[in-house]
Amino acid sequence: MVATKKVGILGATGTVGQRFILLLADHPYFRIHALGASSRSAGKAYQDAAKWKQSQPIPEHIASLVVQSCSSEYFKDCDIVFSGLDADVAGDIEMEFLKADLVVFSNAKNYRRDPVVPLMVPTVNTQHFDIVPHQRKQYNLTKGFMVTNANCSTTGLAVPLKALQDAFGPMSHVIVHTQQAISGAGYPGVPSLDILDNVVPHIGGEEEKMEYEARKILGGLTNDAAAFDMMEQTVVSATCTRVPVIDGHLESVAVKFANSPAPSVEAVYEALEKYQSEAEQLQCPSAPHKPIVVTRLPDRPQPRLDRDLHRGQAVTVGRVRPCPVLDIKFTLLVHNTVLGAAGSSVLNAEVAVAKGLL
Amino acid sequence: MVATKKVGILGATGTVGQRFILLLADHPYFRIHALGASSRSAGKAYQDAAKWKQSQPIPEHIASLVVQSCSSEYFKDCDIVFSGLDADVAGDIEMEFLKADLVVFSNAKNYRRDPVVPLMVPTVNTQHFDIVPHQRKQYNLTKGFMVTNANCSTTGLAVPLKALQDAFGPMSHVIVHTQQAISGAGYPGVPSLDILDNVVPHIGGEEEKMEYEARKILGGLTNDAAAFDMMEQTVVSATCTRVPVIDGHLESVAVKFANSPAPSVEAVYEALEKYQSEAEQLQCPSAPHKPIVVTRLPDRPQPRLDRDLHRGQAVTVGRVRPCPVLDIKFTLLVHNTVLGAAGSSVLNAEVAVAKGLL
Amino acid sequence: MVATKKVGILGATGTVGQRFILLLADHPYFRIHALGASSRSAGKAYQDAAKWKQSQPIPEHIASLVVQSCSSEYFKDCDIVFSGLDADVAGDIEMEFLKADLVVFSNAKNYRRDPVVPLMVPTVNTQHFDIVPHQRKQYNLTKGFMVTNANCSTTGLAVPLKALQDAFGPMSHVIVHTQQAISGAGYPGVPSLDILDNVVPHIGGEEEKMEYEARKILGGLTNDAAAFDMMEQTVVSATCTRVPVIDGHLESVAVKFANSPAPSVEAVYEALEKYQSEAEQLQCPSAPHKPIVVTRLPDRPQPRLDRDLHRGQAVTVGRVRPCPVLDIKFTLLVHNTVLGAAGSSVLNAEVAVAKGLL
Amino acid sequence: MVATKKVGILGATGTVGQRFILLLADHPYFRIHALGASSRSAGKAYQDAAKWKQSQPIPEHIASLVVQSCSSEYFKDCDIVFSGLDADVAGDIEMEFLKADLVVFSNAKNYRRDPVVPLMVPTVNTQHFDIVPHQRKQYNLTKGFMVTNANCSTTGLAVPLKALQDAFGPMSHVIVHTQQAISGAGYPGVPSLDILDNVVPHIGGEEEKMEYEARKILGGLTNDAAAFDMMEQTVVSATCTRVPVIDGHLESVAVKFANSPAPSVEAVYEALEKYQSEAEQLQCPSAPHKPIVVTRLPDRPQPRLDRDLHRGQAVTVGRVRPCPVLDIKFTLLVHNTVLGAAGSSVLNAEVAVAKGLL
Repeated sequence: MVATKKVGILGATGTVGQRFILLLADHPYFRIHALGASSRSAGKAYQDAAKWKQSQPIPEHIASLVVQSCSSEYFKDCDIVFSGLDADVAGDIEMEFLKADLVVFSNAKNYRRDPVVPLMVPTVNTQHFDIVPHQRKQYNLTKGFMVTNANCSTTGLAVPLKALQDAFGPMSHVIVHTQQAISGAGYPGVPSLDILDNVVPHIGGEEEKMEYEARKILGGLTNDAAAFDMMEQTVVSATCTRVPVIDGHLESVAVKFANSPAPSVEAVYEALEKYQSEAEQLQCPSAPHKPIVVTRLPDRPQPRLDRDLHRGQAVTVGRVRPCPVLDIKFTLLVHNTVLGAAGSSVLNAEVAVAKGLL
Repeated sequence: MVATKKVGILGATGTVGQRFILLLADHPYFRIHALGASSRSAGKAYQDAAKWKQSQPIPEHIASLVVQSCSSEYFKDCDIVFSGLDADVAGDIEMEFLKADLVVFSNAKNYRRDPVVPLMVPTVNTQHFDIVPHQRKQYNLTKGFMVTNANCSTTGLAVPLKALQDAFGPMSHVIVHTQQAISGAGYPGVPSLDILDNVVPHIGGEEEKMEYEARKILGGLTNDAAAFDMMEQTVVSATCTRVPVIDGHLESVAVKFANSPAPSVEAVYEALEKYQSEAEQLQCPSAPHKPIVVTRLPDRPQPRLDRDLHRGQAVTVGRVRPCPVLDIKFTLLVHNTVLGAAGSSVLNAEVAVAKGLL
Repeated sequence: MVATKKVGILGATGTVGQRFILLLADHPYFRIHALGASSRSAGKAYQDAAKWKQSQPIPEHIASLVVQSCSSEYFKDCDIVFSGLDADVAGDIEMEFLKADLVVFSNAKNYRRDPVVPLMVPTVNTQHFDIVPHQRKQYNLTKGFMVTNANCSTTGLAVPLKALQDAFGPMSHVIVHTQQAISGAGYPGVPSLDILDNVVPHIGGEEEKMEYEARKILGGLTNDAAAFDMMEQTVVSATCTRVPVIDGHLESVAVKFANSPAPSVEAVYEALEKYQSEAEQLQCPSAPHKPIVVTRLPDRPQPRLDRDLHRGQAVTVGRVRPCPVLDIKFTLLVHNTVLGAAGSSVLNAEVAVAKGLL
Repeated sequence: MVATKKVGILGATGTVGQRFILLLADHPYFRIHALGASSRSAGKAYQDAAKWKQSQPIPEHIASLVVQSCSSEYFKDCDIVFSGLDADVAGDIEMEFLKADLVVFSNAKNYRRDPVVPLMVPTVNTQHFDIVPHQRKQYNLTKGFMVTNANCSTTGLAVPLKALQDAFGPMSHVIVHTQQAISGAGYPGVPSLDILDNVVPHIGGEEEKMEYEARKILGGLTNDAAAFDMMEQTVVSATCTRVPVIDGHLESVAVKFANSPAPSVEAVYEALEKYQSEAEQLQCPSAPHKPIVVTRLPDRPQPRLDRDLHRGQAVTVGRVRPCPVLDIKFTLLVHNTVLGAAGSSVLNAEVAVAKGLL
């Protein structure tokens, strides 16, 4: 397959936008066609507009692309628009694009709670695409639709929770503690004086996002595919902290199952190992070979050693053990700027292509 | 009061030993009289035997003290012996000292589970000194006795749990997640390749220690003061991780109370603020003015900014909020090498002096 | 002596201002009387206006002081005004204060090259106060005058260079390489994504400052005390880098002396050890007992272990050895926010008091 | 070309050995045939013997290979033996292998000063292979020979110095200051307590290595190709420090040319940009497309952003500017565990294959 789908990137100069560019520069389906950023950047060559902070250089054919304003008129030819916009501007711009009948895959939080917009983790709930016809009807669209991906920490949590829910039924209680990388705060983001030799025990709004989003992702659709069926019986309690790590969110999780007896540690390991996602069954090019990499080493996963497994699209899970208070405890790692951000959007879009949605 | 009590320090060249030296160098009660270390160091001047890694220089009058072997014959004149020995040698040496009728305050784990040895956090359970007469009887001692301090993470946890238990009755469930500083692993300790840009999600044996020790500390004594009454109804689940922080363990805690209704967030804040310890009532010189420093700033406590409050002898608590799964969540910070190690022993010894135990 | 001199602090909410507050809160001569900051902060209590980032809490009597605008009318009663203003506003404000006949000790770069304003390192060139009468005459002042302190890196360099110049005559060539702490860039300052697991090989304007300022500091005054006599024969070449260290600038220095033969390594060590400053001879309270702490340990000085020696007012020097290209190489450490910033101003002011200049 | 050359790796479980495995696992010429390590590891499967600390997993076909002792009898079939042995054992073992007529490419320091063993940086002095016939004669070998690669810091320095020497003639003076990554010290290597929030201003033996090795590498061979002709007129002065960076040594360099006038900054940039190595002319698969990547961004190179360019086999150079003391200053970055270690050996071996030496 040659790269025939033209894609646009909104917020192309930011940290999420930069990741989109790296993920899409040599993509088998997608070809970068338009870049959007603030009016300050519009009209400049990309290499002059962006403060590039990636360890790979700007792809050569992107460096000289001229950046546009984030107005749908400049993106009319795009089959897909990926949005890495900040939340303070994403609301208006993404809606303008949607109403212009464009396909929008957004990394922003603005429409995650929208009753007709899927909140999608590509290795978890791609069946939520079934709401697209209803969404189009509501907005009077022919080909456009909008999908958001989840908060970076929620994304990592949702993958093993889905595997456990599939295997053992719903969980009644989930307690999660995150240790989140600085790249999740963008650039300039976290001042070094706040994080060197330090941990910050609070990330504004993050705990609320995790407690809500996990239940939308783990839930289903109503029978008429016109609304989401939240996983209301699962209560989530989150504590989110920032640590001096560049990439990779580590999360310590304890769960209690609604059914008893709870599964054994070994049964949990097996359920995680055999979990498969629709994305890999559809042979999407960015799908991880395994959505969950299970490690039985006692001191893994670790951000620096495990974040790049399966090009950052897998979640690594280890330290499964009994919890004296709930049922089972484990530790997971998610690459926050790949599967936890731009990588989710790209893989979601690949699934949409495979499903014939565009 | 002039410094009239002669003290010895075992394991004086290690990291805990170095902290003992700094805490005792200008102490109003205690005067460093003898230093013990391995046979490799014995016979050398302290400044030649120790790889000094503190940000304050070696106190001048200590630098030239000659290090002894850890045999009680060299410590016969000491009113108190502080032990910063590693667990692999502490068992035999400390018992030899105890049987020589010496007073031993130990930082090692070896006797923490002993049925007649107090496991003591100086701002929590100094009433456990009441078992000393029984301990002396059991070991046929006239003036000697042994007290251990707790694991560094348990120490931090025990202080606010005691305040809550005093105010609201016992807790049925406690879930704690630690982010522990590298200094807790001694020197050379954690290799830098393991911790720069990384978090290690496991510390060998630490979770088991927390789950056991908290219940001994929070419990009482039997009526005859001859045994400990473990706080059996409190179930503790711990997850312990290592982060790239030099000093200061941060802990995220969720608790469920045995009694209902659970206290409000505001009631918890007040209980923490008004908590007092016997150590300060006895006017011990190292006692923190307040055992718990309460912060209501949304992003505190933080290791780098709060670890040195009250010279490292207080625990800072913040982020008290409801827990959707248990009752209440909060975050605490303890200076792991002060209150979490040598500082506990020194303050425990000050309480012993105030109580006339030596 | 009771604290009778009323002092004001400009830029009181910034990082340098915060250091001024800690250094002056319990000062034997100086009493904080007025705090100035931007119009955004004016009218607020200090504790509400400042994002306090120090590891010691805000001194209690300062927390509720109301912040003023930086206009001389609010500082008329002050015997001394310390300025921690940023360079972009310091030029106008400090000049307005000077013309209002106030005494200004500034940490900003704006007047460092002024032909009648001393550029002063308190343990190096306090004899430059002799230009004050001429400065007053030029500005028509009765009691006011202005003194600046040097760039943080230059400050550290100037101290051992002065000791060597006093002992062995002028140097013809100096090559210096700095590894500078993040606190030197203020707050929010260096983004963590730029400095974790990284070194930044450039600090804008820093190399030019070092190459100029060292020569003004090491020079004298003309015979009529009306102008500075730059140390023109000393050529300085500087390379400045930023490293992930919180406080403490480390500098590697190579020097060539104008006279030959060059001194031996041992002679250099002795010259550094015996160096004394006017500030200590005048028994100024903030003067380090020794302006230069010499270490002969092979791997010292180190920022984390040595920056706080003599409360941050000393420069630590070690690794003196022959240079195959120039004559002598050595390594120095300076606490960039104490002697390298606010600490210099405070000690300069103490010398001014001792000399009867105010 | 299929991978037909059988290779062995000595010290396969150490950090350099691990890098050898990653570089050779999918190599077009070389096939890993035998792994050697200490007797403690011999007989174990590689995955059980090694503490694997790389961010890529152990290649699958290597994981189960059984580790041998480092005795030539187990490596008789190998066309090439790569040695990542520590210096304390490399001397005897490598000599035993050489005398067994094997081809040894060593990363250890032991034979770097040997008068018939090339000290080779693959993008600098592969013409030193011309001494191989003489070396074989001296040791009575038919097909074996030994080549060492240089110290990691020297390797980075040698590349731009060679470019400058080729363009402008020899340099009379070189002053270099390094900021070296922790991975250069192996595992466990640098304790985290020594390097977090710190810089260590000394690395034992490193400065002496740089001052010697640069001159052997930059020199030629005598006319009879039987001895090395050291670049004696170039005097090197090195200062080596350790910084909290994982991979990538940054070096600040100042040079003075023997000829005058010195080249302009622009001429230096051009000479660096157009520099080519024999390794790329011979189309060796690991050769960087450009041995020197020139950056004109004011704050580059930076370890985290630039170390992986050209898969770690290039040296990045920037900040070329005049030096007030010598002639020209610049900053370079070398990936210390790729070009600075195992990567050099692999590329040296590729050149040997291309030259028909094995």
